[in-house]
Order: sequence, then C-alpha cells, then structure tokens
Amino acid sequence: MFLHHVAAYLPHTVVANDHFTRRNGLSSDWIIERTGIRERRRAAPGENTNTMAIEATKRVLREAPGIDMAEIDLIVGATYTPHDTIVTLAHAVQHAIGVADIPVVSISSACSSLLNAVEIVQGYFALGKARRALVVTSEHNTAYNNEDDTVAGHLWGDGAAALLFSAERLSPTDLLVRDVITAGAATVGKATTAVVLQPLDRSIIMPHGRDVFQYACQYMTRVTEQILDRHRLTVEDVTWLIPHQANRRISDVVLRNTGLPPERLVSNVETLGNTGCAGAAIGLADTLPLLKAGERVVVTVFGGGYSYGAMLLEREA
Amino acid sequence: MFLHHVAAYLPHTVVANDHFTRRNGLSSDWIIERTGIRERRRAAPGENTNTMAIEATKRVLREAPGIDMAEIDLIVGATYTPHDTIVTLAHAVQHAIGVADIPVVSISSACSSLLNAVEIVQGYFALGKARRALVVTSEHNTAYNNEDDTVAGHLWGDGAAALLFSAERLSPTDLLVRDVITAGAATVGKATTAVVLQPLDRSIIMPHGRDVFQYACQYMTRVTEQILDRHRLTVEDVTWLIPHQANRRISDVVLRNTGLPPERLVSNVETLGNTGCAGAAIGLADTLPLLKAGERVVVTVFGGGYSYGAMLLEREA
Repeated sequence: MFLHHVAAYLPHTVVANDHFTRRNGLSSDWIIERTGIRERRRAAPGENTNTMAIEATKRVLREAPGIDMAEIDLIVGATYTPHDTIVTLAHAVQHAIGVADIPVVSISSACSSLLNAVEIVQGYFALGKARRALVVTSEHNTAYNNEDDTVAGHLWGDGAAALLFSAERLSPTDLLVRDVITAGAATVGKATTAVVLQPLDRSIIMPHGRDVFQYACQYMTRVTEQILDRHRLTVEDVTWLIPHQANRRISDVVLRNTGLPPERLVSNVETLGNTGCAGAAIGLADTLPLLKAGERVVVTVFGGGYSYGAMLLEREA
Repeated sequence: MFLHHVAAYLPHTVVANDHFTRRNGLSSDWIIERTGIRERRRAAPGENTNTMAIEATKRVLREAPGIDMAEIDLIVGATYTPHDTIVTLAHAVQHAIGVADIPVVSISSACSSLLNAVEIVQGYFALGKARRALVVTSEHNTAYNNEDDTVAGHLWGDGAAALLFSAERLSPTDLLVRDVITAGAATVGKATTAVVLQPLDRSIIMPHGRDVFQYACQYMTRVTEQILDRHRLTVEDVTWLIPHQANRRISDVVLRNTGLPPERLVSNVETLGNTGCAGAAIGLADTLPLLKAGERVVVTVFGGGYSYGAMLLEREA
C-alpha cells in the first residue's frame, strides 16, 4: 500500500495568543512556555468539519499526479469534532466528489484517528474491496471549545488534511506504507476522564492534562520504538518524526526518549495549535515534498480515550 | 469469518405512543399507521451510548460459549448519537473489559454503521491483525431527540447490541459471514439534508422524510438482490430478512419488492422505534436462536447521509 499524496486545508483566520491574554489574562509567554503554541487557525462562520474536509479533498485531488477523482473507491473520514454525525464528513466528501456506490465511513479514536483510518484502508485493500482510498481528517475544535476555559481553551485550532492511498505504486514519489500499528489504551490512568468531548455539553475539557501528557509521551515513545524494532530499524534510519501535534513539550520528550535529534522533528503546533487528528496529517503534507529517495518517516499519534499508533513510511531508494 | 454470538441491551423505560398524544396531539393510530411504532425505550438518567454499549458487551461475553473476554483483539463501536466523541464507545468498552493494547475505533455511517463495522472487522481479519472482534452498536436517540418535533420526534428509541466475530468457526451454531457489501449513496436525492444530526444544534431532524423513505426502499431492495445474485441465491434461499428498523412501511416495501413473504421479516420497530444502527443488530440477537442448520439471514441497512449495505449469513447445514 502506498501513500500517493497529501494536502491540507487551513482556515484563514489566525488567532494569536494575545486573544487569550485579553480574554483570560494568560500571557503569551506562559502559553508558549507550556505548549509551544503561538497562534492557531479558526474556521470562518459557515465553515465546519465537513466544508474543511471537502476543501482538503479538492486540493489533494487537484494536485495528485496519478489519481483521478472517478477512481476513488473508498472514503474514510476522521474527526472527533463532527459537524453532523449522520451526514458525516465521509458522506459530505462523497457528495462533493460525486463518486457513487463506494464504501464511506467516518471514524473517531480522538486525536489518534488518522492511523485507525489508514489501518481501515489497509483492510479494504487486503480484502480487494478498494484500490484508491481517500482518508480525510478534519477538526473544527473551535466549534466545541470554550475559550473561557483557562486550562485548555487556548490549545485548540481548526484544520483538515486529505490523504490519497493506492494499492500499487503510481509514482516514484509515492511512499510505501511499510507498517501501521494502532491500539487503544483505555485501560490505563485516567483514560476515560482525562480529556472528553461530550457533544451535549458542547465543550472539550481536559480535567487531567498531566495524565494525558504523561501517557502521550510514554505511548508515542513505545510505539515508535516498536514499529522500528519490527523492521529492524533504528532512529538512525528515520529522517522525519511526525508526532501528534498536541504540545511541543510532548514532542520534545518523545524526541529525547527515542534519541532522535531535534532537527528530525516535524512540528506545526506552534502555528496551528492542537488540530486533533488532522495535526499529524497536516505535518505529513508539509513533509512529503522534502523527502528524498530512501528516506523514512514515522508518524506516531496519541489520543484522548486513550489510544495510540505508529506508521512507518518509506520513499523508494 | 463467523458470527459467534449477539446480545442486546434495552433500557427499561417504555414510552408508548400516548406520550406523544399528550405532548403533541399525535394519535397513536396515526403513528402506527405511518410507522408501525407502538412504543419505544428510553435510557434512564445516567445511561448513555457508552453505558448501554458496555451492558450489551457484558451480556454477549457472559453468554458466548466459545470466546473469553481476554481473547478479544479488536473493538469497533458504532453510533451516531455519541455520548463522547473522544472517550468513544469503543474506548468505553475497552475500559470496561480491561483488555489492553488492542485496536479500538468508533464509527458512523448513521443507521447503516453496523455493516461498515462488520466490514472493518473483515479487513482486520484479512490482514491477520485480529481473530476475535467485538462490534458494539449503541444509540441514545432520546438524548438528541426533540420530542416536540411533530415530524420525527416520535420515531426514535434507545438500545444497544454487541456482536462477537471470530476468524474461524468456534461452535456449530456460528453463522458464516458469506459476504458484506457497504456503500455510500451521498450522491443521490437529498442525501445531505434529508436527515441530519448536528450535535451543536442538539437534535435529530428529518426535513425530507419522503426522500429518505424512497431511497431506503430502493437501496435496501437493490443491495439485497445484489448480495443474493452474487452467490447465485434467490429469496427462496433466505429464511430471515432483517432490514434497518426505521419504519414498518419501509420494511414492507422491501419485502414486496424482493418477493419475500411477510413471515420472513424480522421487525422490532413496533416495540423499539428506530434504534439507529442498533436496530438490525437487536433483530439479529432475537433471530440467532431461531435459526436451524442450513438456514440463511440477510441483513440490509440504509442510513441518513446516505449509505446502505447488506450482509449474508448462513448456518452450517
């Protein structure tokens, strides 16, 4: 299975830290010190999870050298900030691209959904039920965020990214998906209470941020090492590490734990905040053009609930 | 792949049609004539999508002759009425059964999610990444329903069902999953506006019920015929048809269109209302003990958004 192309969509409005200084008295320096976040994007009125997913999809299809829209035979959407749980983002994307009678489904394992979506695609490819799949991650955090929450209100941003996968290699720049691991970790710590989004309460809250922080560091480290071990690789063989974009300090701990040097880190949390399951996908969109023959990328994620995963990508030597 | 066992959980409170007569002036006869629904269940305070999913899971594991809890290696949750989109129902179930480090994910393709969940399990089995999967469908419609809505407020009920699948046959009563088809139909009719649940608006609304009705009849008929044709079977070979439980009149049209006699229909909409993606799964829980050697079941679903599917099950002759 190959990753053919990735494209992101970011809403235009930039919300800098001083917005939260004015609102909640949190200084920009305090926010940066604790999270690395300097600014984030906010969807415009009328934009939502589905519209952003459609924008990212249009972009990835416009830019993809080897895949026509009509060839898409599977759509997996991913979000924990749904605009509509019935007309899900996968349905909205199918409607937008107009390809009839293909499997469409939307999923959530919170911030780790990207890799569950990829693993679901792997399954469809293994069954021979699809050969050209679209994975679309989209989060409209600001729709559910309470900006007055001084604990977590300043963390979230909006954004989307769409990924095109194919069963066979279509272009020399395609990345081989060497492996994907996903798993739930709802059995540990404060998994079921640490970070929650109960739609009827309208807001994302993080009553146990410290628990999330610790397990995010622990599991992203562990699964990164696990996926490398399985392929007899070491961090020396990894050009880019793209962790879930929640907090720069978490990414720094994962780097330190795994022994990767700081220049190998892909990080967008500084300018986008936590864009949920779209964060690592947006990072991948930025990393793809930088990759040279033979280079490898590890994507690792951790989500509230809890769950985690890793994906090993490789450009042909 | 085999369906080993299914169990349902229904909340205790029964809401009869006269509740809506008192509230909205809708007569019970009018509701029955248009939908077949006489009563539905309502979750108690403190119950939600996740708690009902856990109850159904405990029941299926207690009753399953051939699978121990510790063997579960994949959990797929399905709901469009989430209690929590971060601590999803799959995470809640993992937490409840205490099995660490297995893939967990929750999905929605609205009322058709059951079959998407089964198809995702098929993929994991094909990849060799799982051998004992739990699919849990759960809907807490009354949490999102507006009972004052005279168009659709009386349609919805709460309930859950859990299904255990295994890669190999574990018991002579296991059903072979001969085939699963799923597809989106977001390209037709009023797919993206006919029935919607935008969590920030808090309610399920159905502005174009006629459109939903027509496409539900058309697609459930078509995909039932498609799955039978693929296996050179006819309706004569089908003992039970379990359609999505939205409206008795829709089920009757599908029966008529496919030529199945009324006594082959599994129907619970009369006593449970529309329990979303759990409806057909609850029907399956009731049908399993009735099946004799060599008999077949077709499950067919249709969901808002739109999407549809069919599954062909067979008990060993």
